[in-house]
Amino acid sequence: MEPSEFRKRKRVGIIGGNSPDIGSIQNARELGKLIARAGHILVNGGMGGVMEASARGARSRGGWVLSILPGQSREEGNPYSDIVIPTGLGYLRNALVVLNSDILVAIDGSYGTLSEIAYARIYKKTLFGLNTWDIPGVISLQTPADVMNRIQKYFEKKL
Amino acid sequence: MEPSEFRKRKRVGIIGGNSPDIGSIQNARELGKLIARAGHILVNGGMGGVMEASARGARSRGGWVLSILPGQSREEGNPYSDIVIPTGLGYLRNALVVLNSDILVAIDGSYGTLSEIAYARIYKKTLFGLNTWDIPGVISLQTPADVMNRIQKYFEKKL
Amino acid sequence: MEPSEFRKRKRVGIIGGNSPDIGSIQNARELGKLIARAGHILVNGGMGGVMEASARGARSRGGWVLSILPGQSREEGNPYSDIVIPTGLGYLRNALVVLNSDILVAIDGSYGTLSEIAYARIYKKTLFGLNTWDIPGVISLQTPADVMNRIQKYFEKKL
Amino acid sequence: MEPSEFRKRKRVGIIGGNSPDIGSIQNARELGKLIARAGHILVNGGMGGVMEASARGARSRGGWVLSILPGQSREEGNPYSDIVIPTGLGYLRNALVVLNSDILVAIDGSYGTLSEIAYARIYKKTLFGLNTWDIPGVISLQTPADVMNRIQKYFEKKL
Repeated sequence: MEPSEFRKRKRVGIIGGNSPDIGSIQNARELGKLIARAGHILVNGGMGGVMEASARGARSRGGWVLSILPGQSREEGNPYSDIVIPTGLGYLRNALVVLNSDILVAIDGSYGTLSEIAYARIYKKTLFGLNTWDIPGVISLQTPADVMNRIQKYFEKKL
Repeated sequence: MEPSEFRKRKRVGIIGGNSPDIGSIQNARELGKLIARAGHILVNGGMGGVMEASARGARSRGGWVLSILPGQSREEGNPYSDIVIPTGLGYLRNALVVLNSDILVAIDGSYGTLSEIAYARIYKKTLFGLNTWDIPGVISLQTPADVMNRIQKYFEKKL
Repeated sequence: MEPSEFRKRKRVGIIGGNSPDIGSIQNARELGKLIARAGHILVNGGMGGVMEASARGARSRGGWVLSILPGQSREEGNPYSDIVIPTGLGYLRNALVVLNSDILVAIDGSYGTLSEIAYARIYKKTLFGLNTWDIPGVISLQTPADVMNRIQKYFEKKL
Repeated sequence: MEPSEFRKRKRVGIIGGNSPDIGSIQNARELGKLIARAGHILVNGGMGGVMEASARGARSRGGWVLSILPGQSREEGNPYSDIVIPTGLGYLRNALVVLNSDILVAIDGSYGTLSEIAYARIYKKTLFGLNTWDIPGVISLQTPADVMNRIQKYFEKKL
């Protein structure tokens, strides 16, 4: 990719827990592949579980992964992220994962993910969910393909 | 109060929305009074709604109110806070409201409150709720007196 | 002090290093005493060296000390601070020490202090220096009494 | 570039003011070109002056520019940055510019730049200077070519 092309790409955030069940790992990996195939940037928090699985999926299809890390070092985090951004902010970096996404998808997840769901709504971003917190503001869907479908429709309407 | 006494006091955080209904305003004010009467510090986010009502209640009983503000100026925020801490962090300051509390109570509230509920659980703090988000991790109670009762029991067990 | 009185008080920030020489420790302690005697709040970063010495001086005269901590726990930091504010921000909390002060004094200090000097000027705050970084924007003075003199004149002009 | 290649690249931070003189603009643009030609990522704060001039230089040679923005929106900032990271942190983002660089160069600059110089030393990063703050910790050099020479030597020694 040309550098100047990067800025034009849409960014899809995937948020989710460090210790998902096998179904959520598969969903995260599959959605990572679909995001890469669509030519979007995958944004996440750069650590394990759903973050790592989604990054691995995106990389397997040649996609770009932008990860906002909680610690101060680029060495931290899973090896499938391409652009890693250390922050030293600990859990406050969750807000930055959201700020750096155009639209978000929550998969599984515990209270860290809940904070990101909250920030998604604070910053008025559309948020889909796969087997995650069942609360107002999360548009619950069934499969990664459903999610990708809705993401594409969202971006088309914005054009 | 002697300055050195301040550090020994317990801190009770009240989190909640900017535009609560009348019942939640009354709950917030009543709970602020009870916290003051118990000699605890009230911690909140310093702005309107539940934050202002709880501060007003605490002040009416001579209690101390510590408020962590989103903006850069001490002028910001409601007039019932005594110790105001500007941060310039915007909604990231929500995490600091939680870090500065020993225990928390959510009253009413929207997504800002949800982010604080999430941080309360991330940082392993006990959290009571009055007519707020009905999700795991929030111990739902009925009245300010119930809440105060449980707060006192919590602090006694810690001694 | 009555809680509502606290908000009216002026806040004087003292910034400085963790490992000052004996002269700077004496200056910090003396200036802490003078700030307390004048009825102002002492603001600092809550850790060792100049921060601890200034807090100790203020406490010995019954003054209030407000400390913005780098870590997530109130247990952290020196025992002479009264109002401790954990942030979890690491060195980014240096900006909050400055935001919470009306005027600042740098004593000794290394690069952490330099970052606070920079933030003082970014946020347009007046800054005095005692044996510290000799750079534009720092008004260099000789003794704690000189500093206190200038602080009082600054606040009088503001009235 | 392949996404996975990005993470292996070295990152050179350029820090400097919003309103530099013409000589500093030329230095920033020239150094941006040299960094791009060497295959390194240029890191900066994404706004005007030295930041924009360095980004423009890098882009003219096909280099990548990673910019950490103070605000909440990707629209903010100059058009020559490729990977823009909004933070909502205001001037606290200065620490993140430094954390995201392996080595730094200060060109011109006022107190914002001074805060970044301070963070560079706090985080133990090597820092060169071109017509900037003349203080300990800044290795002052004469031309962009001198700087690039020293940067390459620094990275070779690290291998």
